[in-house]
Amino acid sequence: MVENIIRTNKFHKDTFDKTTEERRQNVLNVAIEEFALNGYNATSINDISKKAQISIGAMYSYFASKEDLFLSIVNNAYFLMDDILRDVENNSSDIFDCVNRMIKASRIFAMNYPHLNRIYLDITTQALSHISIKLSNTLEIVTPKVLNKFIMKAKMEGKISGNLNENVAAFCMDNIFTMYQFSFSSDYYKERLKIYIGEENINDIEKLEDSIFKFIIGGLSN
Amino acid sequence: MVENIIRTNKFHKDTFDKTTEERRQNVLNVAIEEFALNGYNATSINDISKKAQISIGAMYSYFASKEDLFLSIVNNAYFLMDDILRDVENNSSDIFDCVNRMIKASRIFAMNYPHLNRIYLDITTQALSHISIKLSNTLEIVTPKVLNKFIMKAKMEGKISGNLNENVAAFCMDNIFTMYQFSFSSDYYKERLKIYIGEENINDIEKLEDSIFKFIIGGLSN
Repeated sequence: MVENIIRTNKFHKDTFDKTTEERRQNVLNVAIEEFALNGYNATSINDISKKAQISIGAMYSYFASKEDLFLSIVNNAYFLMDDILRDVENNSSDIFDCVNRMIKASRIFAMNYPHLNRIYLDITTQALSHISIKLSNTLEIVTPKVLNKFIMKAKMEGKISGNLNENVAAFCMDNIFTMYQFSFSSDYYKERLKIYIGEENINDIEKLEDSIFKFIIGGLSN
Repeated sequence: MVENIIRTNKFHKDTFDKTTEERRQNVLNVAIEEFALNGYNATSINDISKKAQISIGAMYSYFASKEDLFLSIVNNAYFLMDDILRDVENNSSDIFDCVNRMIKASRIFAMNYPHLNRIYLDITTQALSHISIKLSNTLEIVTPKVLNKFIMKAKMEGKISGNLNENVAAFCMDNIFTMYQFSFSSDYYKERLKIYIGEENINDIEKLEDSIFKFIIGGLSN
């Protein structure tokens, strides 16, 4: 199963499993913060070891390279995302309910894990293509499956048109979810959301999400 | 006018205006390529001057800093994007025609200017927020205006529902356009598009764009 590649892989060395939970969390938290703030290419494993107050020797006993440390973090982020998507999938009664939950989940994931979302933005840039090309098959595979499943069910039940192209509809829907998630992830996208909906409307999340919901439902009903 | 900030600003020194057109283009092309490939933070003005085969002294006689060189490039990219948007605006007969043109323009802009699109992806990351926060007000302000204008016109003419929230609709539409543009900008997003629509459909652009068009029109008609 493609989506299990990361779940079964590990990118750290055995030594990292053997250290204390506190030390593990400290290393990962410092690394997440540094990668999120400066981007992958401008972060060195040296900086991380200094800020985490552990020796560079210990760092290399935990991770073979900066890339492996980075992949460990993305790995953990993938678990979190995957859990949220499974939760949406298991609790949604139909495609309409699923859309509603996906909109909320996109915002809540971005707000609860700002550093991981900033790292995700970094992953999608071309400068990280040597790493990210291995990841899109993992990070991007669950959402289309969940959306497709609910769209197909709604088509079969006659709730939406049988002529809808479910693949392109899922792509359009996730484009909206993803950019909405980004709107809570980086200062640039936060500013963009304000420009679109007006600074005075930025706090009426319920109204905003209701309008996004209606737009998507319209798209599904074309 | 906010959208004219960059048009009236210049980020290079007068010396750069006085050198030959060939030399100017060479410096900008090398810088665009380096920023696009490695990202802003991992690119030094030293590397650029070496690859452009001009002295570091000459570089600093053209640009006060790496940031200014970067902003000059973004400035030029903004002109290009703005021209394309004006073209869509001036040639569209209504919102439906406008959507159709925006979808095509997003792909064509990404394919014609891959480096600039990769730089745009970089701008939106948090690591560049100290620069980009000055840019979102410029780069993101024309599209919502164009979309809003055509949506309001269609509402007044009764072509779409008067209940539509035009700001959120414009946000959703641009989310689709932008992620579609990204799908031709970085390897990560190219792979993501393939996952959504299937590798076997990737060359049938007409069918893909027709389905995106229908989804958006449905969203506008909710």
